[in-house]
Amino acid sequence: MSIITIERKVLEKNDEIADANRARFRQHGLFVFNIVSSPGAGKTTLLERTIETLRGEMRIGVVEGDVQTDLDARRVASYGVPAVQIVTNGGCHLEARLVRDALDSLDLSALDLLVIENVGNLVCPANYDLGEALKVVVLSTTEGEDKPLKYPGMFRRASVLVINKIDLLPYVNVNVATIETYARDINPDLEVFQTSCTTGEGIPAWCEWLRGRVARA
Amino acid sequence: MSIITIERKVLEKNDEIADANRARFRQHGLFVFNIVSSPGAGKTTLLERTIETLRGEMRIGVVEGDVQTDLDARRVASYGVPAVQIVTNGGCHLEARLVRDALDSLDLSALDLLVIENVGNLVCPANYDLGEALKVVVLSTTEGEDKPLKYPGMFRRASVLVINKIDLLPYVNVNVATIETYARDINPDLEVFQTSCTTGEGIPAWCEWLRGRVARA
Repeated sequence: MSIITIERKVLEKNDEIADANRARFRQHGLFVFNIVSSPGAGKTTLLERTIETLRGEMRIGVVEGDVQTDLDARRVASYGVPAVQIVTNGGCHLEARLVRDALDSLDLSALDLLVIENVGNLVCPANYDLGEALKVVVLSTTEGEDKPLKYPGMFRRASVLVINKIDLLPYVNVNVATIETYARDINPDLEVFQTSCTTGEGIPAWCEWLRGRVARA
Repeated sequence: MSIITIERKVLEKNDEIADANRARFRQHGLFVFNIVSSPGAGKTTLLERTIETLRGEMRIGVVEGDVQTDLDARRVASYGVPAVQIVTNGGCHLEARLVRDALDSLDLSALDLLVIENVGNLVCPANYDLGEALKVVVLSTTEGEDKPLKYPGMFRRASVLVINKIDLLPYVNVNVATIETYARDINPDLEVFQTSCTTGEGIPAWCEWLRGRVARA
């Protein structure tokens, strides 16, 4: 019982800080999304393709979250965008206060789009608002069709689903329409994109959607 | 501070129950492993191939852990082995008490091998002993080479690494030797298998290793 109370307090405190983060983002007219997935679904590679496509037309910053290593921040920084790495040191998700502290290393007034890449985990990050406008969940075709049913919390809280690695569809026993059906069973309002970061298929449609969101922020 | 204290108490209590589970397993001469991975790495399919190979020569039981649905227990039960589903209802890992309760539905004296399939999550299940003899971590080739470095806790606590979906190696930019090198950097004692549940490659070696462990239990 005491644990539940304390967990609720942790979440309440997190929501307060998330709201403060959101207010800062709004003040700077910044569009911010929180990108979540299983480990290895391709969040960082999607981000690389996105930066390649959009960096000439908007100013992009990245906050990377990982259990260990700054590999992802270094990958993203190599594209010439400001990137901050949060190492959770065993922690299974980002929290709003970690993002708040990371923002000290970024000039928000010099950005149009901020991407927060969460720890690779389809469970825990669902419960933590970071102050983002919305969550984007990435699912690799290789993970199978049943993931929206088995991890419904994340698919319910996300606004966008990116089904990635569609270039591997010929080699896996997976029907992309079934993934979409299951995902919309959980969340009928999901915006769905299909992408391959290897062939580039679907990246233009995803980036066009992002352009619209950044323009409206 | 109070949260840390309570978390420590939760883990201490978990370890006590895990030890009791382990004593029960030992009493029945049962070999038990706890299989962990990211969502969609292929734990359940590896289990299906394992059951197909070994069911004629040993008695296998399964405890399935999922955030939602009993899809996996139904898949496994269709092979004619006793299977119990634990639904964590949002919980990101199995705990020893959940496994203890699940054991009420299994006749341990009628089993030689018990597999506990954890929630798909490379972070949280690393911290929870369930009473198993050892942890087997499954990593899909499609997840990329850097996962042992980015999720070191799990690779440190596992005794066996199964690199799965090796049939997809021609289509992904991944070197299996690099995965092995990174994994052994984290844990030099890891036993490593390479498998494809689609072609069956590597399944005999994995099952041969299992035979040896079951014989010694």
